[in-house]
Amino acid sequence: MALLEQTIASIPDSLDREAFNAARDRLRNQAKPAGSLGIMEDIAARLAAIKGCIDVKLTNKHIVTCAGDHGVTQEGISLFPAEVTPQMVLNFAGGGASVNVIGKHAGAIVKAADLGVNYDFDPDLPIFHKKVRHGTANFTKEPAMTREQAVESIEAGIEIVAELCAQAPVDLLGTGDMGIGNTTPSSAIIAVFSGIAVEKLTGRGTGIDDVALKNKIAVIQKGLDLHKPDPSDPIDVLSKVGGLEIGGLAGLVLGAAARKIPVICDGLISTAGALIACELAPAAKQYLFASHKSVEIGHKYMYDRLGLEPLIDLKFRLGEGTGAAVCMELLDLSTRILADIKTFEEVGVTKA
Amino acid sequence: MALLEQTIASIPDSLDREAFNAARDRLRNQAKPAGSLGIMEDIAARLAAIKGCIDVKLTNKHIVTCAGDHGVTQEGISLFPAEVTPQMVLNFAGGGASVNVIGKHAGAIVKAADLGVNYDFDPDLPIFHKKVRHGTANFTKEPAMTREQAVESIEAGIEIVAELCAQAPVDLLGTGDMGIGNTTPSSAIIAVFSGIAVEKLTGRGTGIDDVALKNKIAVIQKGLDLHKPDPSDPIDVLSKVGGLEIGGLAGLVLGAAARKIPVICDGLISTAGALIACELAPAAKQYLFASHKSVEIGHKYMYDRLGLEPLIDLKFRLGEGTGAAVCMELLDLSTRILADIKTFEEVGVTKA
Repeated sequence: MALLEQTIASIPDSLDREAFNAARDRLRNQAKPAGSLGIMEDIAARLAAIKGCIDVKLTNKHIVTCAGDHGVTQEGISLFPAEVTPQMVLNFAGGGASVNVIGKHAGAIVKAADLGVNYDFDPDLPIFHKKVRHGTANFTKEPAMTREQAVESIEAGIEIVAELCAQAPVDLLGTGDMGIGNTTPSSAIIAVFSGIAVEKLTGRGTGIDDVALKNKIAVIQKGLDLHKPDPSDPIDVLSKVGGLEIGGLAGLVLGAAARKIPVICDGLISTAGALIACELAPAAKQYLFASHKSVEIGHKYMYDRLGLEPLIDLKFRLGEGTGAAVCMELLDLSTRILADIKTFEEVGVTKA
Repeated sequence: MALLEQTIASIPDSLDREAFNAARDRLRNQAKPAGSLGIMEDIAARLAAIKGCIDVKLTNKHIVTCAGDHGVTQEGISLFPAEVTPQMVLNFAGGGASVNVIGKHAGAIVKAADLGVNYDFDPDLPIFHKKVRHGTANFTKEPAMTREQAVESIEAGIEIVAELCAQAPVDLLGTGDMGIGNTTPSSAIIAVFSGIAVEKLTGRGTGIDDVALKNKIAVIQKGLDLHKPDPSDPIDVLSKVGGLEIGGLAGLVLGAAARKIPVICDGLISTAGALIACELAPAAKQYLFASHKSVEIGHKYMYDRLGLEPLIDLKFRLGEGTGAAVCMELLDLSTRILADIKTFEEVGVTKA
């Protein structure tokens, strides 16, 4: 708990207002109609405020894909069998998965993290080895994990950021997830925090049909009725209906914010982790960027609660960090827009 | 006219169906839920069909920013003075404008083209020198240009593609525009083709106020009432209420389609050019990709008519090719998704 508390306490209350204003001034004076690069200008100014300078360089980019298994898959809530979780972790380590390909295109280093996969990986496999337990318990019968394990999973995420930074300063962090069944705990989490009805928040995950969707909604409701997670206590929520990778994802956000590293969160599961983080430490929101709009309907409600707007809507419903990876290129581009587009004065163009 | 007719005649009627099906098969067998990379999968399959292979390499990327002046600026329809058009062409040539910065990030070569700027550039300036006349006439008083000049502007665009290809094969072309006042002819063009009321299609361009917007709508209506452009004759539309850079942009699309080069069109003005091209040669649509959703309201109606959906919505309203440049990275990424993400079989992951 000490690490979690220390980390939360070290997140700055506010960003660099001077750098923010300098960025806004430069954007306004560039030889183009004021505000004509829309959302990219907003991103550029926030990144300047995070980094404390106008010429931000996002050189060292990382994506961490947190993996965990879910006891609740026993209830038939996913199209894929649970054995796919470890198989995909091996696929990430081998470099052939979607997030590897998209991350490479964005110039990011992709690494998976085992927070709670129900499989014993070779200790030499190039992933972060942070297993808290072999998958969660089935939350329709007992809490997904203990309170101590929930804290441990968050602290594992914080440790991962520290380990990355020990090698070289990290300029931008993307989060991603892998865990068969993990849209179920994610929908449960946003249901607790928002108070919105489960059937309004629950989507088809990897592609279940109408009958399976109805079952999935009933499974989530059963978990909430049984455990009554307390929305004012995010650790309680995570432990009762969450996931180990979701705890890890929360830790990544907290660890990054404490080091002033901007974080792009991915789809439903990454954003569930970000939600846990920001319910614990609202100041972490300043470092958080939304990526894509997921096809999963609960995602919108998470963004609403975090005060974020998705940057792109390419109808992704994959996770892994794929949406975060696509958006890394946009954040990178926004820094070039701010630093490199010349002002009216610099190029002798008449101002309107 | 011979060049225009030859070019239209040489656009293939259909794409490579075999490559398209092979792409769809591979995407379906990749180790991810079917269709989970959404729109990127559709783009990848169409690019495969255009190029006739699965491992598409978009190495040689170009953006051509067509510039022209507009007599109709005499009617006070723009916030910026007309002298900004040549100033911005010099800015493009110097590499400090928005499209240069965004194009560079996308790995594209950006070059401006003078189709009809009201200024005599140094012949050594590194742009395409294709001036048809020194700006259009004020279409509230006379046709913007003659029919011959309209054809000449389109053929100039076709020639630009030929000149680019003479150096090295072009893998992807982005179009962009510069011309103070050019949202006015662009809105006029979509009004003619769609039959939708001018006030529903006309936006604020670089940022005019309510009074100026009312005037802009009246100016467009006056031009349409005076000349009655024939929607079944795209050359008639272009000559009466169009622009020289819009003709050039139409030529770029036709020239690219005739050489099986995919084209990304930018905002309102580029899409007006694409519309002229596809009204002349509907088969050109197969090679056309939408980029961003412009803040200009007429843009949506153009996309509707072309059967295109914008890829991103970043609230851009700049032109120059900036939206096309951002989307070049997405098209590039889609080719990597198709070629590089491994299949279930290749990595030994269990299929749903």
